[in-house]
Amino acid sequence: MPSELPTRVHIVEVGPRDGLQNEPEQIPTQGKIEFIQKLCAAGLPTVEATSFVHPKAIPQLADSGDVMSQLADVGDTEIMALVPNARGLERAIAADLKRIAVFTAASDAFTQKNINMSVAKSLDVFSDVVAGALAGGMSVRGYVSTAFVCPYAGEIDKSRVRDVCEKLIAMGCDEVAVSDTIGAAVPKDILGTVGHVLESIPLDKVALHLHDTFGTALANVYAGLQLGVARFDASAGGLGGCPYAKGASGNLATEDLVYFLDRMGIETGVNLERVFEASSGIAKVLNRVLPSKQWQRMRAIVPK
Amino acid sequence: MPSELPTRVHIVEVGPRDGLQNEPEQIPTQGKIEFIQKLCAAGLPTVEATSFVHPKAIPQLADSGDVMSQLADVGDTEIMALVPNARGLERAIAADLKRIAVFTAASDAFTQKNINMSVAKSLDVFSDVVAGALAGGMSVRGYVSTAFVCPYAGEIDKSRVRDVCEKLIAMGCDEVAVSDTIGAAVPKDILGTVGHVLESIPLDKVALHLHDTFGTALANVYAGLQLGVARFDASAGGLGGCPYAKGASGNLATEDLVYFLDRMGIETGVNLERVFEASSGIAKVLNRVLPSKQWQRMRAIVPK
Repeated sequence: MPSELPTRVHIVEVGPRDGLQNEPEQIPTQGKIEFIQKLCAAGLPTVEATSFVHPKAIPQLADSGDVMSQLADVGDTEIMALVPNARGLERAIAADLKRIAVFTAASDAFTQKNINMSVAKSLDVFSDVVAGALAGGMSVRGYVSTAFVCPYAGEIDKSRVRDVCEKLIAMGCDEVAVSDTIGAAVPKDILGTVGHVLESIPLDKVALHLHDTFGTALANVYAGLQLGVARFDASAGGLGGCPYAKGASGNLATEDLVYFLDRMGIETGVNLERVFEASSGIAKVLNRVLPSKQWQRMRAIVPK
Repeated sequence: MPSELPTRVHIVEVGPRDGLQNEPEQIPTQGKIEFIQKLCAAGLPTVEATSFVHPKAIPQLADSGDVMSQLADVGDTEIMALVPNARGLERAIAADLKRIAVFTAASDAFTQKNINMSVAKSLDVFSDVVAGALAGGMSVRGYVSTAFVCPYAGEIDKSRVRDVCEKLIAMGCDEVAVSDTIGAAVPKDILGTVGHVLESIPLDKVALHLHDTFGTALANVYAGLQLGVARFDASAGGLGGCPYAKGASGNLATEDLVYFLDRMGIETGVNLERVFEASSGIAKVLNRVLPSKQWQRMRAIVPK
């Protein structure tokens, strides 16, 4: 284990995709665009803006093409979108995207429920998608969902996680996002599973995608930092669903992560106040309080 | 730094005192007694049951004598109460308490606002209280509030914290509870300040009292465990006030801590389901949802 923590962390903002896809109400396209642009203005180096899934699968993201075509002023931020299949890749190419993400899991029970195929089958499908993306000059991230506990299959073996990560890297992904989909993990899981993944995959290709369902997300970030991991996903305001507790937080909130890293003395290049502004904008559109604890604090002390 | 984490942790339950003292509505004495008894039945080794403050100072705890006299069935649990002065000690002795706690801070600005005296003056007052308690066969814990950041004075120097801890130990306290009163700390603070305290005070005399205001509590628990600390305060259901964000969580929730430690493979002797039952009982009395994320999850999945 490295004795020093990373001095700089790359935050991947997933709020506009992983967060908003769980919202029951349709959000106006313009609201999404402003949200994404404000996140870019906050200095987030990567923003996952939308998903090119079939509109019937996730109606909330049916306007992904419009979001991408109307997006402007993204500065130095890298815009990424989720792509589930060949049709999605065509739309991503048409939208002139430079980076896409593919989504699989370490649990067959989970992929069956979510994308109606086994993990192996999904890797087959993605193999062509990734090849097509690379041929088109794009780079690709691979999500490995349910890397610790699956809501259907229970505990997940670390060798299974590493195997899926290795296959994603082998097919051309430059990053695997090891994901605690239900937020069940504790640092022991991070050290065990992510430590195992790092035995075969270089540090700069591993990201952690954490949920704060049970309040363990920042403890897991700390464990990840101690392993040398320096890429973390977060969702502005803590947007994102939670499979168990209605009203409880889902994704690790960007504000909570930035506060944590700022105080740890770890650079992110992200401006906390500007993330708060972005979240506050989308909170107004959603007309509700967001789960992020930092967002709630800032909302309490910032003049309205 | 020890290479192995502690295998067992002692949880000090502070919900009935630190949690309930912040409730705006008067809670029936019987409701408090049932809450405390259920916490004892959950296997919590220490429960801070009330405070012998002047009834006008904290009206919510004005019935502390009645709570103590009517308390039964506490099993092996050690019952503790906060004592602010000589009069409080008399009442604690009358209640046949075996353990008390005194409350000071590392910031004069904080003690001035809270107990209307400087830290040095509070240590003078407590010196007599502790001597009296020890003479009466009691043991004493000392709280060191605002050990990292003070809401009035800002950043707190670690040497100041160690100095106050040393004075409390020197006057006869067998434990100092190093307290992150506003929940601002991150693991770097724990390693710095608590690491510094541990240079002069033995591990078994140091407890961490953490708030989860910004979602950092379990990360700080993990940092504490890495230092070898094995005594942590928690509040059932996450009861407890937060000086900034209305509705945001205050004290680290007992359920969240027990889930975390259970999954880390660290023994506590505490039964999570029974803590949930205790919290659910007081939630019914308070007629509101509690902030603990585990409590919310269990409430969502447990049949009503």
